[in-house]
Amino acid sequence: MKYAKPLNNLINQLSKLPGIGEKTAQRLAFHILSMEEKDALAIADSIVNAKRTMKYCSICGNLTDEDPCLICTDSTRDKSAICVVESPRDVAAMERIKEYRGLYHVLHGAISPMEGIGPEDINLKSLIVRLQQNEVEEVILATNPNIEGEATAMYIARLIKPSGIKTSRIAHGIPIGGDIEYADEITLSKAIEGRRVL
Amino acid sequence: MKYAKPLNNLINQLSKLPGIGEKTAQRLAFHILSMEEKDALAIADSIVNAKRTMKYCSICGNLTDEDPCLICTDSTRDKSAICVVESPRDVAAMERIKEYRGLYHVLHGAISPMEGIGPEDINLKSLIVRLQQNEVEEVILATNPNIEGEATAMYIARLIKPSGIKTSRIAHGIPIGGDIEYADEITLSKAIEGRRVL
Repeated sequence: MKYAKPLNNLINQLSKLPGIGEKTAQRLAFHILSMEEKDALAIADSIVNAKRTMKYCSICGNLTDEDPCLICTDSTRDKSAICVVESPRDVAAMERIKEYRGLYHVLHGAISPMEGIGPEDINLKSLIVRLQQNEVEEVILATNPNIEGEATAMYIARLIKPSGIKTSRIAHGIPIGGDIEYADEITLSKAIEGRRVL
Repeated sequence: MKYAKPLNNLINQLSKLPGIGEKTAQRLAFHILSMEEKDALAIADSIVNAKRTMKYCSICGNLTDEDPCLICTDSTRDKSAICVVESPRDVAAMERIKEYRGLYHVLHGAISPMEGIGPEDINLKSLIVRLQQNEVEEVILATNPNIEGEATAMYIARLIKPSGIKTSRIAHGIPIGGDIEYADEITLSKAIEGRRVL
């Protein structure tokens, strides 16, 4: 069925979101149209409001509504460590475990020669500036365990080396609850390579 | 992690949508924040616009941006048949098969004593008015094949009976591609009950 134009437009817009196909977009659109007007408008408002007020922290690059962000200005956090991640979602994931108490640096991407993304295209220069200004003792490289993330980690480690600041890479191996039988070869070889004496 | 308020609000709003849990809402929210401003605002606009312009057809109750809707005003459609459905999504599903050329009537619900929804709570009165005014020869009851839908179909059939207008119920049975082995008992008994001579 060809839907009425405003409904069609809503379905199209919703299906641009990740993981939302045509069918799901239709279901969501009909649901939105069946909602109370104020509830539907609240969704639209929350998009406009979040988009208008959220920005990137000028120090670490994380998503925030205040600049500098609450992590950078938190005096209880350990300023001797910076955890380097690819995206704000990675910061959220790290914060959820409530274990790491240092600072972050968000690269907003990873080096990828295949896609023409070089070191100058990610938020890297400001990391080097931070390392020169602050008393950072360790840089934890928590980029993703794929080709781009590994290359980025290697590149940053080499870049930092002359400064004498310690760099570390998060461990790769079999995830807890995972099955050795079903682990891919690269993960398994990383797990053996990174074995620890008990 | 406690997100910044505007982001938190966006996640909350998105997670009110059907089938969107906390995790998916987070993923969508971060994606929206990483979009170009104009693209993100286009989503919000499409919600506001659809909510403001889409209404229910004053004749059949279907979702439309013009009243009466395009189906009710289409002179090529067969005005002797009205297909009664529970929701605008059911109209969309029927229209997709491109087989039915009659009119519709959307009840916006089904009779459900359990939930305190009686015949006066659904869009039923206007159906009776339509039957008195028009030359309708058949009312096809296409409410859902569950307790509420069946009860609603039975109620409407009894209501229409005195007028002499033919009422029919869509067929229930094993869906095409379905497995008899895995069919539930009610569906299977409906399939036998509704068997046709070849």
